[in-house]
Amino acid sequence: MAEQDVIEGVFLSAAYDLREIFAEALAPHAETIRLRHPHEIDDPETIRFALCWRPADDAFLPYPNLRLASSIAAGVDSIINCPSLPADALVTRVRDEDQGDVMAGFAAWHVVWHHRNMRHHIVHEAKHEWARLISARMKPPRETPVGILGFGLMGRAIARAVTAMGFPVVAAVRNAPRDAMPGVRFESGEGAAGRVAEQAAILINVLPLTAQTRGLLDLDFFNRMPVGAALIQLGRGEHLIEADLLKALDSGRLSSASLDVFDIEPLPAEHPFWADERILVTPHQASDCSPRRMAEQLARAARDVVAGRIPETVVDRANGY
Amino acid sequence: MAEQDVIEGVFLSAAYDLREIFAEALAPHAETIRLRHPHEIDDPETIRFALCWRPADDAFLPYPNLRLASSIAAGVDSIINCPSLPADALVTRVRDEDQGDVMAGFAAWHVVWHHRNMRHHIVHEAKHEWARLISARMKPPRETPVGILGFGLMGRAIARAVTAMGFPVVAAVRNAPRDAMPGVRFESGEGAAGRVAEQAAILINVLPLTAQTRGLLDLDFFNRMPVGAALIQLGRGEHLIEADLLKALDSGRLSSASLDVFDIEPLPAEHPFWADERILVTPHQASDCSPRRMAEQLARAARDVVAGRIPETVVDRANGY
Repeated sequence: MAEQDVIEGVFLSAAYDLREIFAEALAPHAETIRLRHPHEIDDPETIRFALCWRPADDAFLPYPNLRLASSIAAGVDSIINCPSLPADALVTRVRDEDQGDVMAGFAAWHVVWHHRNMRHHIVHEAKHEWARLISARMKPPRETPVGILGFGLMGRAIARAVTAMGFPVVAAVRNAPRDAMPGVRFESGEGAAGRVAEQAAILINVLPLTAQTRGLLDLDFFNRMPVGAALIQLGRGEHLIEADLLKALDSGRLSSASLDVFDIEPLPAEHPFWADERILVTPHQASDCSPRRMAEQLARAARDVVAGRIPETVVDRANGY
Repeated sequence: MAEQDVIEGVFLSAAYDLREIFAEALAPHAETIRLRHPHEIDDPETIRFALCWRPADDAFLPYPNLRLASSIAAGVDSIINCPSLPADALVTRVRDEDQGDVMAGFAAWHVVWHHRNMRHHIVHEAKHEWARLISARMKPPRETPVGILGFGLMGRAIARAVTAMGFPVVAAVRNAPRDAMPGVRFESGEGAAGRVAEQAAILINVLPLTAQTRGLLDLDFFNRMPVGAALIQLGRGEHLIEADLLKALDSGRLSSASLDVFDIEPLPAEHPFWADERILVTPHQASDCSPRRMAEQLARAARDVVAGRIPETVVDRANGY
């Protein structure tokens, strides 16, 4: 197949109509890639790549020549865990520096929400009450360590934002980076996440979902955190044992939490998190990739794969991110 | 007078009982400085300094040997504008790096509040509604210029925080600083504030209150801002023409505002700002100095003044800050 031919692809999502969401972003790449829904394809052997979000278990089965599975976002867990993903397919994610900034702003907002008890102001504003908090009771940022679990593009962007506000950061990493980052200390190797928890007045989770990180945020984990700590959960719902969070809040170990991701999304209206004033619920809104960036990187990855090159945005399937 | 003698001072505030607020912070400095209330003083010629917050117009009259008037905070406008302030008295403010961090976090929080429309999430959370915003409609931080009026300790700390979240900053300064700051452009000289307004999707005011800045935030000023811009008002209530803000919101020129300071504080319960969902009201909570830091700097300034030295924390009375 010549590189200048249009490369054929398929939308694979059990959750969304990806054509509807991305038609505008994909249009400028029509000379490079063409995407169809499975029911529109009667020549499945021509399909070389898939654009995916939560594909069904058997989604990849019809496509013998598929060698690329691209996520519409930063997360790839639902693709890597798909039983029908061909063993030799490359998996790519979107890498979007804008998304790092967007995530950093969102995470920093929640850090201040907990540090300054901004819920207090929202509640009193609604009652038209002038209710100052005694600032002498607030520890300054420099005495309020922020822990970060997950130190890829997102975690590093968050660290830049919160250190710039004066908070010291301690981050869990597999291997300590060679480059120092001002205001950031690292915990690495076995048990790093737990050691970060022990130090974090405010803990931000942006881990990828893997077998190792599933269920990490449980009662044992919370009980290692300083009394009165806050959790900002921006990873995946499956990282958190929801009942254990409520136990940790009830015991006073945790004082408050921000949750943007959940086991079941949308979070059902009757879920106890909604009415709990200690918890701030947001609707999986922390950050999205730019559709334009996604489409550009998808077209480039498709060209790379048919030319035998490894796309820049490839993930390590064994690591899961 | 020998430098090791206790230096006599007076609390001057028409608003607060400063002894009650600062007794604990001042205690460690009892061998250096002693402060009394005016009614406790029968030897007014011994008084060398005052600790002030909104002193009454005639507050300084009884003290012929007073040479230092120290603010409890960063603002000095109520001291400099006090008619009885001796012409030769030095005025000092508190310089508190922690306060810069605290202010930066508060300002950055409001930047994200407007950029991400966090009110939407608070409103829907209260109704237990999962209501995602379409993120494709959001401009990324890099395309969302943040203007800063006032570029002292506070303004610079805010610039560090918001540039770290990816927002470009444009700041109004008297003279462009020699040191470049990554991500920050400067407008200087005559009309700088207005030129910042023209460029700012989100404008943060942390100006000191002077004759030049009083009433700066009026309808003409707002009408120079981009349509749909947001205002974050953290300076002094007297910077803002309150009725003009409502006009600018009603016309759609501004989309939203955060107000932390007001003409009348506490903001009266019947004030229209409280019930206006476009406006977030907070109770003059952006940042306070650390009382400990205030007390340290007061003791040092008192020692400096009696020894004929200029305190590090002195302000330029002519400039007003």
